[in-house]
Amino acid sequence: MQVLHPALILLTSSGPARIPLSMLVIFASAKLLADVFERVGQPGIVGEIIAGVLVGPSVLGWLAPNDFLTALAELGAMFLLFRVGLEVKSSDLLKVGGTATLVAAVGVIVPFVLGTGILLLWRAPVNEAIFVGASMVATSVGITARVLAGRGLLHLISSRIILAAAVIDDVMGLLVLAAVSSITRGRLNWLDLGLTALLATGFTVVVGKWGTATARRVVPHVEAKLRVGEAPFAFAMCLLFALSLLAIYAGVAAIVGAFLAGMALAESVPRRVHDLAQGVSELLVPFFLAGIGLRVDLSAFRQTSTAVLAAVIIAAAIVSKLIGCGLGALKLGRTEAFRIGMGMVPRGEVGMVVAQLGLTMGMISQNIYGVVVFMSVATTVIAPFLLKIAYRGIGQEWSVEQDEVANIA
Amino acid sequence: MQVLHPALILLTSSGPARIPLSMLVIFASAKLLADVFERVGQPGIVGEIIAGVLVGPSVLGWLAPNDFLTALAELGAMFLLFRVGLEVKSSDLLKVGGTATLVAAVGVIVPFVLGTGILLLWRAPVNEAIFVGASMVATSVGITARVLAGRGLLHLISSRIILAAAVIDDVMGLLVLAAVSSITRGRLNWLDLGLTALLATGFTVVVGKWGTATARRVVPHVEAKLRVGEAPFAFAMCLLFALSLLAIYAGVAAIVGAFLAGMALAESVPRRVHDLAQGVSELLVPFFLAGIGLRVDLSAFRQTSTAVLAAVIIAAAIVSKLIGCGLGALKLGRTEAFRIGMGMVPRGEVGMVVAQLGLTMGMISQNIYGVVVFMSVATTVIAPFLLKIAYRGIGQEWSVEQDEVANIA
Repeated sequence: MQVLHPALILLTSSGPARIPLSMLVIFASAKLLADVFERVGQPGIVGEIIAGVLVGPSVLGWLAPNDFLTALAELGAMFLLFRVGLEVKSSDLLKVGGTATLVAAVGVIVPFVLGTGILLLWRAPVNEAIFVGASMVATSVGITARVLAGRGLLHLISSRIILAAAVIDDVMGLLVLAAVSSITRGRLNWLDLGLTALLATGFTVVVGKWGTATARRVVPHVEAKLRVGEAPFAFAMCLLFALSLLAIYAGVAAIVGAFLAGMALAESVPRRVHDLAQGVSELLVPFFLAGIGLRVDLSAFRQTSTAVLAAVIIAAAIVSKLIGCGLGALKLGRTEAFRIGMGMVPRGEVGMVVAQLGLTMGMISQNIYGVVVFMSVATTVIAPFLLKIAYRGIGQEWSVEQDEVANIA
Repeated sequence: MQVLHPALILLTSSGPARIPLSMLVIFASAKLLADVFERVGQPGIVGEIIAGVLVGPSVLGWLAPNDFLTALAELGAMFLLFRVGLEVKSSDLLKVGGTATLVAAVGVIVPFVLGTGILLLWRAPVNEAIFVGASMVATSVGITARVLAGRGLLHLISSRIILAAAVIDDVMGLLVLAAVSSITRGRLNWLDLGLTALLATGFTVVVGKWGTATARRVVPHVEAKLRVGEAPFAFAMCLLFALSLLAIYAGVAAIVGAFLAGMALAESVPRRVHDLAQGVSELLVPFFLAGIGLRVDLSAFRQTSTAVLAAVIIAAAIVSKLIGCGLGALKLGRTEAFRIGMGMVPRGEVGMVVAQLGLTMGMISQNIYGVVVFMSVATTVIAPFLLKIAYRGIGQEWSVEQDEVANIA
């Protein structure tokens, strides 16, 4: 029976087996490697990312990223941020708004300058250099959120600052990208840039500020009036999709909309909605994590010079966020500043999107594209280790015991 | 802003907006129409199917079935049957095995004979006639299961017989299809047919009979040893995908594997797994239901003769299952026999798959394909009404009150 060699089937099959087979391979390998990593005292979440590298094109070649898996990964990220949003009060986030803005701003400037500078020293063309700088700007908060939520640390002041700064950082990253795209095209349209800024900021501020109050008025009506099963959950899903969509139209990432949707509902939906949403995120988040690993392509590193550049860029990506965000949060003390800096390190899919755009615009070479993708994955894989150090001694380990407590609760 | 005209975007966009936009359109319209249907005292589930017809190619044209939506629909059907399986003890199902086999067998023969006969009277070619007969054979149990689960009727003897008969019916449907495919190709390979029968029956019987006992031994180990969050749920998902996959390899539908996976776990997983799985199914089942409606294409019915044939075929599809399955269950009394017959009426996606195969093999014409698809949808849409009559006075209505009880529990 062909059942025994998944590689053969996965690469050839487009029949009905494709869906359960690819889901089984990704989900089971992610959970298996998470288990192995936890057993040797390492973050299980890294195991889930590595599972994607393993089954992906770089190692076993069982699966390549395809439309279906990409869609599941995207949904996984949305539900992860939605669920994190459900645990966060918007008033708590607005309170740390000032610090978070400072953290985000310095944390955008330092990586951009450092990344562009390194590429210029490497004698890359100016356009390529500023594209790489831009790709190092935006934090992908998914991994950090997953680690902090898993360890029950979302209530800490540093966690709130990380979340708020990541949202602001996404808006700033959009502006940097818009500016870079027009500069490299030879003309900077200030009006366009201003409108982009206004739309993205407006969406985030309006939903962040008035979302909770609106949801508090609307949700009881929905619960009382809507004649469908699990009405509050159905409403929550509609809001999640609607705000993710509006976020995209406003120019920011879908996950920012998903986070804002969760936060808007945090104080008004019943506990049952949290549980049902958790079911979806337990299923889909492994596809988000393994999906990051799936995109790693090690073939770009046959040249030693590329490998050296990659190492330098990764180091710069880590150090620049640590210093940039840390400086922005320095008034909270060195421990908190260190934690916040660490939490902002992962670039995840955001860096990849910028690199992809640079590639399609013909601004960066295939090799540099490989370097940026590798930087995005590396900063994401290293983040749980960094956070483990930063939060040593507080919070729970992601362990079986904790899980059992959760089951009983 | 282009936000205002979804049709434009949906048909042109392949960007990041595609996923949240299509999910919002399907999910929100399904829930909205479910609400409207419930308000006028009709089954909400029919509203969800009609929502698919409305936003689909036949009416508004906002969305056409695509790979992503088809995958979500398939997953939705899998999770629906998985969750139904979780509520069913395999021992209860095995007890009604004899009656269920009789129900399935007579319920396969009558529609096949009637469907083939009508097409022959219509002077269709013999091959086309037996393909239409084959497409009327297999019950799609999703809709019935959703209605019975929604009204809290899964514990009834008639519900168990319907579930068991639907599984057996799927195996028989496979054999009819295999036989029909080889006959229309001009040669009937008895060895092949025997192997197909053996594999499909073997898979179903082995998993149905020993699945529960195996799960009861394995699940406690998984809970105690696996170092990942929500370990029993992670294990359940692996089993769900693995058995769905094996079901496909064994020749039966993925949803049969999903149902068997749920049933195997019914007596060993903690309540928490039910809740998490329900989250996924609450999200995805509307895509399964609306997905049925999405596939309706009314353009085949411009010819009056095709429309008349469609009406005759639909009537035959309903009456033949009612009579066939009812006869098989007659010893339980006329009320139970009537309920079981009604529960077996929907053909759903199974009929469509057969018609699709006939179309690709060049055995049936585009017009007849349209008729079979319409029959599949029509029997599915009518089923909740029939079940409402059949189970009048018992069980709960799918109402807001019930939902509130579920939330509190």
